[in-house]
Amino acid sequence: MDGNETPDLDAIIATIADEMLSYQGCGKVADYIPALARVDPRHFGIAVTLFDGRVLVAGHADVPFSVQSVSKIFVLVLALEKRGAQLWQRIGREPSGSRFNSIVQLENEKGIPRNPLINAGALVTTDALMGVDDPVATIAHITGFMRELAHDHQVGIDPEVARSEAETGYRNASLANFLRANGNLDAPVEDVLNVYFHQCALSMTCRQLARAGLFLANHGVDPLSGRTVCSPDTARAVNALMITCGHYDASGDFTYRVGLPGKSGVGGGILAIAPGRAAITVWSPGLNAAGNSEVGALALERLAAMTGWSVL
Amino acid sequence: MDGNETPDLDAIIATIADEMLSYQGCGKVADYIPALARVDPRHFGIAVTLFDGRVLVAGHADVPFSVQSVSKIFVLVLALEKRGAQLWQRIGREPSGSRFNSIVQLENEKGIPRNPLINAGALVTTDALMGVDDPVATIAHITGFMRELAHDHQVGIDPEVARSEAETGYRNASLANFLRANGNLDAPVEDVLNVYFHQCALSMTCRQLARAGLFLANHGVDPLSGRTVCSPDTARAVNALMITCGHYDASGDFTYRVGLPGKSGVGGGILAIAPGRAAITVWSPGLNAAGNSEVGALALERLAAMTGWSVL
Amino acid sequence: MDGNETPDLDAIIATIADEMLSYQGCGKVADYIPALARVDPRHFGIAVTLFDGRVLVAGHADVPFSVQSVSKIFVLVLALEKRGAQLWQRIGREPSGSRFNSIVQLENEKGIPRNPLINAGALVTTDALMGVDDPVATIAHITGFMRELAHDHQVGIDPEVARSEAETGYRNASLANFLRANGNLDAPVEDVLNVYFHQCALSMTCRQLARAGLFLANHGVDPLSGRTVCSPDTARAVNALMITCGHYDASGDFTYRVGLPGKSGVGGGILAIAPGRAAITVWSPGLNAAGNSEVGALALERLAAMTGWSVL
Amino acid sequence: MDGNETPDLDAIIATIADEMLSYQGCGKVADYIPALARVDPRHFGIAVTLFDGRVLVAGHADVPFSVQSVSKIFVLVLALEKRGAQLWQRIGREPSGSRFNSIVQLENEKGIPRNPLINAGALVTTDALMGVDDPVATIAHITGFMRELAHDHQVGIDPEVARSEAETGYRNASLANFLRANGNLDAPVEDVLNVYFHQCALSMTCRQLARAGLFLANHGVDPLSGRTVCSPDTARAVNALMITCGHYDASGDFTYRVGLPGKSGVGGGILAIAPGRAAITVWSPGLNAAGNSEVGALALERLAAMTGWSVL
Repeated sequence: MDGNETPDLDAIIATIADEMLSYQGCGKVADYIPALARVDPRHFGIAVTLFDGRVLVAGHADVPFSVQSVSKIFVLVLALEKRGAQLWQRIGREPSGSRFNSIVQLENEKGIPRNPLINAGALVTTDALMGVDDPVATIAHITGFMRELAHDHQVGIDPEVARSEAETGYRNASLANFLRANGNLDAPVEDVLNVYFHQCALSMTCRQLARAGLFLANHGVDPLSGRTVCSPDTARAVNALMITCGHYDASGDFTYRVGLPGKSGVGGGILAIAPGRAAITVWSPGLNAAGNSEVGALALERLAAMTGWSVL
Repeated sequence: MDGNETPDLDAIIATIADEMLSYQGCGKVADYIPALARVDPRHFGIAVTLFDGRVLVAGHADVPFSVQSVSKIFVLVLALEKRGAQLWQRIGREPSGSRFNSIVQLENEKGIPRNPLINAGALVTTDALMGVDDPVATIAHITGFMRELAHDHQVGIDPEVARSEAETGYRNASLANFLRANGNLDAPVEDVLNVYFHQCALSMTCRQLARAGLFLANHGVDPLSGRTVCSPDTARAVNALMITCGHYDASGDFTYRVGLPGKSGVGGGILAIAPGRAAITVWSPGLNAAGNSEVGALALERLAAMTGWSVL
Repeated sequence: MDGNETPDLDAIIATIADEMLSYQGCGKVADYIPALARVDPRHFGIAVTLFDGRVLVAGHADVPFSVQSVSKIFVLVLALEKRGAQLWQRIGREPSGSRFNSIVQLENEKGIPRNPLINAGALVTTDALMGVDDPVATIAHITGFMRELAHDHQVGIDPEVARSEAETGYRNASLANFLRANGNLDAPVEDVLNVYFHQCALSMTCRQLARAGLFLANHGVDPLSGRTVCSPDTARAVNALMITCGHYDASGDFTYRVGLPGKSGVGGGILAIAPGRAAITVWSPGLNAAGNSEVGALALERLAAMTGWSVL
Repeated sequence: MDGNETPDLDAIIATIADEMLSYQGCGKVADYIPALARVDPRHFGIAVTLFDGRVLVAGHADVPFSVQSVSKIFVLVLALEKRGAQLWQRIGREPSGSRFNSIVQLENEKGIPRNPLINAGALVTTDALMGVDDPVATIAHITGFMRELAHDHQVGIDPEVARSEAETGYRNASLANFLRANGNLDAPVEDVLNVYFHQCALSMTCRQLARAGLFLANHGVDPLSGRTVCSPDTARAVNALMITCGHYDASGDFTYRVGLPGKSGVGGGILAIAPGRAAITVWSPGLNAAGNSEVGALALERLAAMTGWSVL
């Protein structure tokens, strides 16, 4: 299909939602905290927000889920706007070739995380955003940003998830202490972890998240409100990081299959950006071996094939 | 700039060529073989082939250079057309996070190279293309393919480069033997190396290479001749690999700066694909620390900025 | 020299102390905490405790220093006596080939430290000793053990060192959290670190430490008091670990040069065991690149050469 | 048992041989070449050569087996005698923490093998011994040396094993090419491999090998003939390397269990040195997971326990 025609998106979304029924329950729901473990594995939602204001949805598009690592994208936008290119002195921009929570690369590269979308890099990003601020203020800042972007003041943090993350977050505590040992955290370790666990615990629907990400498809300007969220450079940088690093050590596979910048979270959500066209969120809690939504990625693969929206 | 308008490309190319004069001689020319070491570091060429048949050139666009790893793209196209998705049982599709000639990842992952654009993966790709054929026939096959794509029968292999590569190629011999020890080469080690050293020694101009790669910007069909070179799936796969893995352990940086699928070679050439629009080749022999053309990447960064061709 | 003759040890010790004067100040004093950084780099002490009760000393043999990692030996003795071979389900017995505080190996081997003499392994050892006990009780247990072994109730913990270790111990906190994330710590992370930082802060003289280690030269029985400190198996295990892993990633070099089981600490102390003959402590604060006392190792090399005490 | 008494060795050897019957066939015979794969897994032999000239044997002590990596010890003696401490500029003296044929460490440490007892280090050792000599002359040199040491001119190389090693030796070819790429081989890759494959193919009995190694227990002087084979420094260096690195990534375990310097080979042989007392060879083809003789190590563990010969 020629990417410049307008495909019948309503039909496409309906078809995809229908097709995904046969994969219901595929993958393995994250079970490291109870609040994630008890999510119904049969859920599937999709929302596509277009530049003309239409929002196409199917399935459980209005059920909130834990955005987890998808939040890294938005905190990165805030940190880049606040710190500019200085951030790249503390974090790389390369795929890591390792799992999302790997510490090996950190040791080999003196505490500079490979990119901001692995856990170590996200901790540095959060620290860069926080600066000398209070963690509570930073959490409020992030939550407020998400509410504005989503145009929905229902967006909030699930306190049970935040608490569980903190109680079980030894691996992230290991990363944060390692970063601090290498001088790559400024705020106290517990403050950075506190903010990080809260941002991961943001609870949003497909509809909210697809609305929130739309500015990334339009050089940093929300095409509906006209509001400038970030600079074109920031938007392009974030998209570049998503297309090369957005799915941990399965980023190459996602780009191969879908051909769009995207970011996944262990809650089962994926935000994908179709530059110049749309922002898309899919959600299905079952994860594949790399920790990405199995059915979600499949749905996006179908969407890209049917719309011709792949950038490649 | 809006990506859908036609920018004044002639002016852009002239501007870039002019700007690059001030970077003349930047980077370090590859010196592991004499034929590369003696290339004039001040060379700079650029060629842009458009869907309407125009070819815009500047600088040393008609001086042949050693394409080196850029050849991996074309051999991959041939291997994917011959073997289809079976190839992915022998090679991954993920960024390696390592240098182009690293063997560490191979040991940790039982002889399956991370992707076809690092040396180990390219050796497997070459082996997959060769099958039970004669190495001489395979070399002829590759050369013929490049001539057809470039529409120029001058394209050929520099025998001095091929010989030098063979004489100094201990690192590649190490990789090939390692692959064979893991059962991931079918042909004899020396035959695979023979073909590989010859494909690296292909000598082409910016103009020839930009013409040869045009089909990758058009779903596998040469927009000028109408000839189907490969399937849309192959074209998309190759573009995906270029955008995530095309510049070794600096692939993320290239995508961040340029926003186009691209593949570099230590001869100083880079082929970049602007989907739906053009194929671009830049050439400048000086390499940066990651082994990619320093001025070439800069020229592409400017081109993307001035044309709005970034896919992100 | 034939190892079975009794060399004139008094003369040898005096000679060594004299020779070491010309190396005064060599190496680099640990400076990660103030209490270590301000130690006079010109200090050198040596003490040799023999089976007949004689103690030969020279230099600053009665100046207390921070034993640091030498304490790992004694905590390991206690843990092995308490837990027996079960301990080896939680820690390996192999040289790590990595630095003392490396976390890479931990990630690659699912949280099982390579041996008890690197930091990660020592943290597990401390946890195994502590069990469900109070950290304060465990610290008292260790201190009491050292006093008994040294036959000197002056032995104690330097509270400033313990406090500084805790304040700067991000790397160890990273290791401890990583171990806990892998289920290889039972006690709370902060309790294990608390005990660990205190055991490292033990302050002892060469004379005290050489007395304390004597049982390791005699199959676990203190030859002077006749008291059984540990089983022959424990003593042999500890000696084996010292000869293969006692000097981090320079263990092979120490065994090559000295030929005795030994354990170093970043305070500049080294405890060496001459089986059937003596326990030796040297102390000189300047460290080599691997973190071991430079002059201390040299003194032991000379001692082994002059006495023929090498076991090899 | 006190290590200074003379235990009833005849009884001990007989007991061990008897005990080992119940482990007959344990472990997995090396099967990468036919000549090794067809060895009877039930074989067990032991030979102990004492300073008084007695040789105590049991089991298949006079059946020749492929010495494989045990040969590394003797080539190292020759190379150290020829090159002295210069050899340590090309090879380290540290345990590798990796498998015998790992290439990871080589890449991370710029082509300097960790020690001479892993394959990469042995290749450099062989190259250092060969220098500008002919490979055939070097093979003859090594064979002659072994014959002299064993006092038995039957000692020779199994040509079938040497040929099979060469035909299947891709992993070693990978290592050798890697070393050459890093400038750490002087002779042509194929020559070094040729000598290496032949030294591994030496075929010897327990009796011959225990006789050959006796000088290592006596500071380099054969106690029976009085001949000086090597300097005391060389003998001590080789023993130190055996106790820290002699069993690949299970060296720590061997030292923990046996407490003697030792070197294993995938043919199932182990040479152990009891300094001042004896040289011991055990042979049993079944290997454990680390590639060391399972029953052989067990027999040595029993021998050390019954004789008190552990050096620790």
